[in-house]
Amino acid sequence: MPHNKQILLDNRPTGEAVASNFKLVSSETPALQDGQVLVRHHYLSLDPYMRGRMNDSKSYAAPQPLGQVMQGGTAGEVVESKNAKFSLGDKVVGFGGWQEYSVVDAGQVGMLRKVDTAHIPLSAYLGAVGMPGVTAWYGLMKICEPKPGETVVVSAASGAVGSVVGQLAKARGCRAVGIAGGKDKCDYVVQELGFDACVDYKAHKDPKSLYAALKDATPNGVDGYFENVGGVIMDTVLARMNAFGRIALCGMIAGYDGQPLPLTTPQLILTNRLKVQGFIVSEHMEHWPAALTELGTLVATGKLKFRESVAQGIEAAPEAFLGLLKGRNFGKQLVKLI
Amino acid sequence: MPHNKQILLDNRPTGEAVASNFKLVSSETPALQDGQVLVRHHYLSLDPYMRGRMNDSKSYAAPQPLGQVMQGGTAGEVVESKNAKFSLGDKVVGFGGWQEYSVVDAGQVGMLRKVDTAHIPLSAYLGAVGMPGVTAWYGLMKICEPKPGETVVVSAASGAVGSVVGQLAKARGCRAVGIAGGKDKCDYVVQELGFDACVDYKAHKDPKSLYAALKDATPNGVDGYFENVGGVIMDTVLARMNAFGRIALCGMIAGYDGQPLPLTTPQLILTNRLKVQGFIVSEHMEHWPAALTELGTLVATGKLKFRESVAQGIEAAPEAFLGLLKGRNFGKQLVKLI
Repeated sequence: MPHNKQILLDNRPTGEAVASNFKLVSSETPALQDGQVLVRHHYLSLDPYMRGRMNDSKSYAAPQPLGQVMQGGTAGEVVESKNAKFSLGDKVVGFGGWQEYSVVDAGQVGMLRKVDTAHIPLSAYLGAVGMPGVTAWYGLMKICEPKPGETVVVSAASGAVGSVVGQLAKARGCRAVGIAGGKDKCDYVVQELGFDACVDYKAHKDPKSLYAALKDATPNGVDGYFENVGGVIMDTVLARMNAFGRIALCGMIAGYDGQPLPLTTPQLILTNRLKVQGFIVSEHMEHWPAALTELGTLVATGKLKFRESVAQGIEAAPEAFLGLLKGRNFGKQLVKLI
Repeated sequence: MPHNKQILLDNRPTGEAVASNFKLVSSETPALQDGQVLVRHHYLSLDPYMRGRMNDSKSYAAPQPLGQVMQGGTAGEVVESKNAKFSLGDKVVGFGGWQEYSVVDAGQVGMLRKVDTAHIPLSAYLGAVGMPGVTAWYGLMKICEPKPGETVVVSAASGAVGSVVGQLAKARGCRAVGIAGGKDKCDYVVQELGFDACVDYKAHKDPKSLYAALKDATPNGVDGYFENVGGVIMDTVLARMNAFGRIALCGMIAGYDGQPLPLTTPQLILTNRLKVQGFIVSEHMEHWPAALTELGTLVATGKLKFRESVAQGIEAAPEAFLGLLKGRNFGKQLVKLI
């Protein structure tokens, strides 16, 4: 029975999340019962939605319980099995949480999925070929509904979700414009990911300056907007939306610490006859197979690029997560556990 | 050639619209050319959208030109005709503007429509069986998409649009809840129109009190919201929306004078996976025949009730319009011109 280091939620943030909200503990993994498997996690996924669950407020997901292992997606390897469908050495993706090992009732549908690592790296199943990729695919395809020649804007453009949104939009014949923080991220978005333009919001602290930069980048206005951050950035893009534009509301990370996050000019939704729609990808499981097939093929053939920020060791997870909330990561934030 | 009194837009409002923005003039109606008809207006329709057109700002419609007759829907009678399809005495509905007579190129599609006044009063074609009724029908049916047992809320509930929204929602098996200003309007909405409940926003100046009253009226939350006003009322209803709720954004009269109209908690659109969609009924002409058929049948059979505020004489139009913007009307605001 291996030794298992775990990170618990010890107490809830008041305002900004801090390292002392978390607590490192360790224990022995329990003996397996019939049907269970023991997974050694190679990678833990860190995602912005986790911040929402740290609050004890009504949201789409139940709050993360106090004193329990932080929830999160994981990719790893079966190291012990009492389930006929899983063998030692199988590479698997699941929801094992912030810990080195998890015991999984592998018979339950959706708990654990075997993945092919011959053509796709294991870590990608937590990013471009996983929940973030499907999030990008669903919001773009089913809400933004891009048509060739249209302009699609995405915020947090260098991130796990945003990077996929822009590349999929390009593949559909759209002008893809990112918004990201800093020259390095913007250069990456344009030069590596192939977006047509990227606006560095950190270089435009003043809303008028940000609007002018976005206007330069979107000479024909904006038809589809994939929103990951909210706040001033959302206000600014709203002012560039064309009639009948579509906004997929995926994240509003700017408000996760409880700060006010008003939308300044909601009347633009009316005057431009926009559709603004919030979504959570886990409620649209029927689209996952089609999305994962496309995303997996694109990654395996090198047509969909992504970048990862990898922290080492479970002890590093809290700081890596707090950095993610501040945009210190560059691409998909992972924690490597082996 | 009859004498024709007209109201022009003389100058644009700075902030609130005032009577001196308008100017009364009169002239002789010109001689008809081939294909034209002369319509004597019996009723002029006053509608909130007109306030938006008084501004010289980008909106969905071109601004009302200065020095020209105020635009608006009219219902009347053909009093002279050089068009074979129209005869003296025909009752017609068109877009004749704030004047007593209009000369219409009746050959152009959509300029003038003959209506049956045997079963439906002429004035109703400017209200429940006209643009306001179709607005209610479209926003409710195509955006709110009500299902039996759901709760539908509508603001400006006693008005030309809101009164139809609630009655159509009731007919589809929904709980219909209105928001209106004053006890008289709320009593009317419940007792005459058959809504299940109505919240008097004037009795709840404090947002918390308004929320508490709305909560009492919507014990199962809100699934569909038809928004006519914006501002604090929209914020309050947003906080009562159920997961997967739909909001039809039809009007935001609270912001027509240019005052800030922020949406305080747009993150609720995300956490509750809402759809918020703006629309303008004139862009959905393909739905008008179905809507008018249903609305006409309901009015003719007494199943759809409505109320009118009628000002007398073209001179009374500006004050009646300014009163409409302040909610002083009760039901559809008309000006009777004969």
